[in-house]
Amino acid sequence: MTEIPYKIYLEENEMPKEWYNVRADMKKKPAPILNPGTLQPVTIDELSHIFCTELAKQELDDTTPYFEIPEEIRNFYKMYRPSPLVRAYCLEKKLGTPAHIYYKFEGNNTSGSHKLNSAIAQAYYAKKQGLKGVTTETGAGQWGTALSMACSYFDLDCQVYMVKVSYEQKPFRREVMRTYGAKVTPSPSMETEIGKKINAEFPGTTGSLGCAISEAVEAATTQEGYRYVLGSVLSQVLLHQSVIGLETKAALDKYGIKADMIIGCAGGGSNLGGLISPFAGEVLRGEANYDIIAVEPASCPSLTRGKYAYDFCDTGKVCPLAKMYTLGSGFIPSANHAGGLRYHGMSSVVSELYDQGILRATSVEQTKVFEAAQMFARVEGILPAPESSHAIRVAIDEALKCKETGEAKNIVFGLTGTGYFDMVAYQKFNDGEMSDYIPTDADLEKSLSTLPKVD
Amino acid sequence: MTEIPYKIYLEENEMPKEWYNVRADMKKKPAPILNPGTLQPVTIDELSHIFCTELAKQELDDTTPYFEIPEEIRNFYKMYRPSPLVRAYCLEKKLGTPAHIYYKFEGNNTSGSHKLNSAIAQAYYAKKQGLKGVTTETGAGQWGTALSMACSYFDLDCQVYMVKVSYEQKPFRREVMRTYGAKVTPSPSMETEIGKKINAEFPGTTGSLGCAISEAVEAATTQEGYRYVLGSVLSQVLLHQSVIGLETKAALDKYGIKADMIIGCAGGGSNLGGLISPFAGEVLRGEANYDIIAVEPASCPSLTRGKYAYDFCDTGKVCPLAKMYTLGSGFIPSANHAGGLRYHGMSSVVSELYDQGILRATSVEQTKVFEAAQMFARVEGILPAPESSHAIRVAIDEALKCKETGEAKNIVFGLTGTGYFDMVAYQKFNDGEMSDYIPTDADLEKSLSTLPKVD
Repeated sequence: MTEIPYKIYLEENEMPKEWYNVRADMKKKPAPILNPGTLQPVTIDELSHIFCTELAKQELDDTTPYFEIPEEIRNFYKMYRPSPLVRAYCLEKKLGTPAHIYYKFEGNNTSGSHKLNSAIAQAYYAKKQGLKGVTTETGAGQWGTALSMACSYFDLDCQVYMVKVSYEQKPFRREVMRTYGAKVTPSPSMETEIGKKINAEFPGTTGSLGCAISEAVEAATTQEGYRYVLGSVLSQVLLHQSVIGLETKAALDKYGIKADMIIGCAGGGSNLGGLISPFAGEVLRGEANYDIIAVEPASCPSLTRGKYAYDFCDTGKVCPLAKMYTLGSGFIPSANHAGGLRYHGMSSVVSELYDQGILRATSVEQTKVFEAAQMFARVEGILPAPESSHAIRVAIDEALKCKETGEAKNIVFGLTGTGYFDMVAYQKFNDGEMSDYIPTDADLEKSLSTLPKVD
Repeated sequence: MTEIPYKIYLEENEMPKEWYNVRADMKKKPAPILNPGTLQPVTIDELSHIFCTELAKQELDDTTPYFEIPEEIRNFYKMYRPSPLVRAYCLEKKLGTPAHIYYKFEGNNTSGSHKLNSAIAQAYYAKKQGLKGVTTETGAGQWGTALSMACSYFDLDCQVYMVKVSYEQKPFRREVMRTYGAKVTPSPSMETEIGKKINAEFPGTTGSLGCAISEAVEAATTQEGYRYVLGSVLSQVLLHQSVIGLETKAALDKYGIKADMIIGCAGGGSNLGGLISPFAGEVLRGEANYDIIAVEPASCPSLTRGKYAYDFCDTGKVCPLAKMYTLGSGFIPSANHAGGLRYHGMSSVVSELYDQGILRATSVEQTKVFEAAQMFARVEGILPAPESSHAIRVAIDEALKCKETGEAKNIVFGLTGTGYFDMVAYQKFNDGEMSDYIPTDADLEKSLSTLPKVD
């Protein structure tokens, strides 16, 4: 048997040349997204007012299994991809587990996460359409950073509405975006009608993601030559992120490794969906079985405690309705340091796969997550993002189960990013000041009561 | 001809198994380091009171050309090495140069720089000697972070004296160190005699590197089972850092590329010395010629404007004297955002190579450096550390010269790290508030007047 290196890197010519669209292999498709005004399925034409036309097409295409990755995007990928599939030898040793643990590490780029995989695709199609620029929102800033990098590469204007509290408390992310030439505006701003309205209604508000989305959409639709882009939840984003899963599978295949479990953290579903897509496809086609696990924060448990129903994707209710596992668009997650997982809903593709039993879900509390993060950092040398650490927690727990049973399972998880800009959270943990919060049933009942009436 | 990939990764089995000691190939050796009390060459015995015995031996050995890299260290290296040698296709295109630009990227690890290469070696020898722990100082925090990671891996206690102003202004680096279990103390502290003395003499002082070194040395020599470790300047550090140059050379050789220029930033000389060692060795042995360039900040120009003389390595004057290019141990560099390059002297190995004409030196001003950093970040996708950006500046300038002359030179430079914890500096640049400062001749005359009398 070939010895497995610490890091499996594919050669450049082994990198995927096509993205994989898991919807094509689903017999029962995810429910269509609906126009919030008419409650009818959104058309490409309608969607093209908000998104680039090519991306609108990708969004609605649930039958084409493969999309060619344009050469310009593949060349950009070559600057930071293939990402390594790492054998966690040191973690295995620390745990004393017979399990073999692998992680696909997406953090070795300046955006610090997998977000760049879709940002560059969306920027490319915007450029190809001859647009001047794109608008978006960002909370913690990872998506905004990725998009800034992508737009800089294609010389596109990039306007980022950053939730005001993050803009003020996370100046470093803001500066990374500015270094890449993006215009970063604290939201709510006085530059959009919706921003002015919110500022008038709630003087001194520090903003929310929902509000920032509304501003970004308004900015895109009122400026000539602009479109709006989004970093998660959408099916087009999962399509682009399939590069993670395709590389992972190619690397495993190269060494003849058959994964038993695939574990990913789940916020809006972009990383999870991308990682699991090719594996879920095999399951859907009846070619293989995998234990696929979505890990979400106990404070924002859309899969494990939400409802599978049509809901608004944004708090401002300007975006299309999607059928998804949701806590209600009015759900306000408690202070949680995994900012990227604080979304009330879940990608409709991931939701439907979950509903069909292709994957299971579990939730974890944040102090346990940071304990796993610290252990991982110390033995594997990578300081993980709080989001990614949700997957680490469950991978460790599963490896410890293997220790009890003696099973040498192959556990694969997605390490989506690094925590270099999350040191405030680590400081809380280091100081023993981190707390957990789980919403009560009454909390969820209340937020779920705002679901729109569809049918 | 084989197409050169964007990133050249060696296989794990192609990684160096030995460090290279360039001193062995120098006919005229660097001058010996001297005991500050007796002014006689320091013995291994004397040095072993401060450093681990094995490291003391490495420090004084100027004849053994190769040192085996212990397997434990090689295994640790495998977690983040081999580091890629990147072909800067996008930068070349942006510049429109016929030159081929390559950079050895050392930033893909949580310490964010090449410092980890020596930290893990020093921690290993400390562990092997049965020590309880090590002490060190850190300014901006890169070295402290690297050492914290290394000590955590070998379960060694790690005590870091961090310059108080950095401790307070750079809380994120501090938290990374704490996450790895290090004890981080703002210096001057009330925990050492020298700290108490300095606090009494200068109430409210925010500290200096010199003071932190003195505290760390005191802490090492007054606690049973502790030694002091240092991240740059020393010949042992250059030995460990030769892994950078050896990998670079192996990657170039693999694709049949002959470097014309090797460019590195120079503070204490650890990265530069490590990168150039195998190339300088070829020059010394008469096997090849390279244009080797050390780049230093105009605000701290030890090679270009300093004097080649014996000097104290630390402001506190407790460490051995070294013959080196120096601005005088009392030289106080102006506010400069490349904290890692603010050292008054230069590694005695690099100094001697410079004196023998094996390398040349140039200095650059920081606004020009940040212009290069920004351009590089935008086209190559990596946000570079301010230190590394000194090398980028000169690589760009040399590539532009090639554009004029039409020469297709192979330019190789060291990209020592990322700038994720340097966003305050980028913010200054983004806001147009960055200034340059060059010391006057009178400034240097004054600081050089404090050189010790030796001979």
